[in-house]
Amino acid sequence: MTEDRVYNFAAGPSTMPESVLQRARAELMNYRGTGMSVMEMSHRSPAFAEIFQDAKTKLRELLRVPDTHEILFLQGGATLQFAAIPMNLMEGAAADYAITGNFSAKAAKEAEKYGTVRIACDTADTGHNRIPAQTELRLSPDAKYFYYCANNTIYGTEWQYIPETAAPLVCDMSSDILSRPVDVSRFGLIYAGAQKNMAPAGLTVVIVDKRLAGRELPYTPQIMSYDTMIRHDSLLNTPPCWCIYMLSLELDWLKEQGGVEGMEQLKKARAKILYDLLDESRLFRAHALPDSRSDMNVTFRTGNAELDAEFIAFAKERGLVNLKGHKVAGGMRASVYNAMPIEGVEALAACMKEFEQKHV
Amino acid sequence: MTEDRVYNFAAGPSTMPESVLQRARAELMNYRGTGMSVMEMSHRSPAFAEIFQDAKTKLRELLRVPDTHEILFLQGGATLQFAAIPMNLMEGAAADYAITGNFSAKAAKEAEKYGTVRIACDTADTGHNRIPAQTELRLSPDAKYFYYCANNTIYGTEWQYIPETAAPLVCDMSSDILSRPVDVSRFGLIYAGAQKNMAPAGLTVVIVDKRLAGRELPYTPQIMSYDTMIRHDSLLNTPPCWCIYMLSLELDWLKEQGGVEGMEQLKKARAKILYDLLDESRLFRAHALPDSRSDMNVTFRTGNAELDAEFIAFAKERGLVNLKGHKVAGGMRASVYNAMPIEGVEALAACMKEFEQKHV
Repeated sequence: MTEDRVYNFAAGPSTMPESVLQRARAELMNYRGTGMSVMEMSHRSPAFAEIFQDAKTKLRELLRVPDTHEILFLQGGATLQFAAIPMNLMEGAAADYAITGNFSAKAAKEAEKYGTVRIACDTADTGHNRIPAQTELRLSPDAKYFYYCANNTIYGTEWQYIPETAAPLVCDMSSDILSRPVDVSRFGLIYAGAQKNMAPAGLTVVIVDKRLAGRELPYTPQIMSYDTMIRHDSLLNTPPCWCIYMLSLELDWLKEQGGVEGMEQLKKARAKILYDLLDESRLFRAHALPDSRSDMNVTFRTGNAELDAEFIAFAKERGLVNLKGHKVAGGMRASVYNAMPIEGVEALAACMKEFEQKHV
Repeated sequence: MTEDRVYNFAAGPSTMPESVLQRARAELMNYRGTGMSVMEMSHRSPAFAEIFQDAKTKLRELLRVPDTHEILFLQGGATLQFAAIPMNLMEGAAADYAITGNFSAKAAKEAEKYGTVRIACDTADTGHNRIPAQTELRLSPDAKYFYYCANNTIYGTEWQYIPETAAPLVCDMSSDILSRPVDVSRFGLIYAGAQKNMAPAGLTVVIVDKRLAGRELPYTPQIMSYDTMIRHDSLLNTPPCWCIYMLSLELDWLKEQGGVEGMEQLKKARAKILYDLLDESRLFRAHALPDSRSDMNVTFRTGNAELDAEFIAFAKERGLVNLKGHKVAGGMRASVYNAMPIEGVEALAACMKEFEQKHV
């Protein structure tokens, strides 16, 4: 790390590639000869239109989004999607929700306003430390869609398979988008808040099968209608321009790193360092069951809350910050998203070993 | 202007103070010793909490927001508010809408989904070139609120008075917030997309009388409920952190410039230069009627579309950009928001005179 920066393990908003930030800084006052910052640009200007289309094109290439699907750049984060999804796709009928953590539970609760929510599974009984097998999923014949969250930030679990369902799949990929190849054609809708793996907070990427659009409830706000947004190419109103620009820069970086295949290699390498250490540790233990572990959020603890706090402070002194677990889970959490360099994870592993030697 | 920048007259997103952008650039990689960018900060971190509260406090001071009113930092722009306002305040009943331009018409259209919209006035018959007098407003006894847009960006008109109504006032101040003192206690709700006068696109400021909260329709999305957002101090979910940070920097600048009184002086000075020129011009004429003129968006034309286009190109060569009028209005529009320095307006006036001499 240069510029006196720390390794930031925050769960989101989270660390960004240093070269991306440096590029943004270099262009901040005057974007490529336009004489203005991207923050000052009309969203209808040719310069911004190029940034916008360029970001879309790169995302389509990187994720291999088929022509059947549209990419939308929206606002409001997952919380807005919790309502937009049932308003657009449920048709006042029913949908299946897989509850494997905090955010899928919130999504299901919000959806109850718009139709019948059927719980396909709920892993709360084991502290959300696992992802259910395909055979455990209760699928309703009348479900308009099947909803799940690919990676559970708080508990540190990640779906290692794509569920087989008759209903269209709707997936919250906020915390693992672009971290591995994914067959987009299998999904009715994928969405992701940008602030973990892609860009600063304030942008939501939605990838929606156009054949599912146009079924919204009559009182759906215009800004929440996928159909309207598809027709306006997301430019019904002023989009979060700066975030889209930062996404574009980050996608350039991601391409240089080998795209989603490069990210997957890095993801596996980062996770292996940490889980190998945890499996051998006499002090720390991983929260998630081995076959359900997230490569993006590694949750662990000592079993002693005071010792956990001591470790978090110990790491902070060494420039490894935001390792405290979410309040509902406790312990520690290392969020190691796309932009976390392997060096950051090596530094964390060294710090954990040093701490363990002192305390065992 | 330094750094090879232009004078940017865009209607929004629009120009920002140079010193604010320079500050953002200086802090971009490492915000005040935290070792990270504001773009990478957890929205629950102490460093970000300070930025957030600081921005709120400064805005409350500058606008003298009374304790009865809460300040919210939201996403989705005016378009989301077009739905949120009736969902929260209309109670499925009726509301009065003053139509003085494009955005108030859109707001009224969206509100029809949630109750009965009564048109208090509509200035479409004269090309929205004026603001109606108080006596022209048709007020309904059963209106849950009275809605208007304080400044019409497209047509260049601005309300010079606050309407007297029995129903709570709801006002879109996107294009003139912080440009003059305003008695916030007279309003039930004020909102503004940040991208004209305050910060980059992606942030919406809502100032709402807390006594009006809690009346939302049952299907109101959580993210659109003022009551929910008040209870969570806008942090129900991840807010647009970077925009809030930029707002905070811009509010510091605004304070240095003498606050809203300073902005009002500047606003009057900028507008006087342009309207005096237009009133004397033999080539250009102002679109809006004198008593309805906006100090933020000065709309004018030659009466000849080809000549208009020639002028726009002529100005662009001189580093004065984005003077083209909105497509529904035609002609020229100089948007001169809070951050436009008087030098920019002087340069525009000189350019207009030069062009006039060539063509008259």
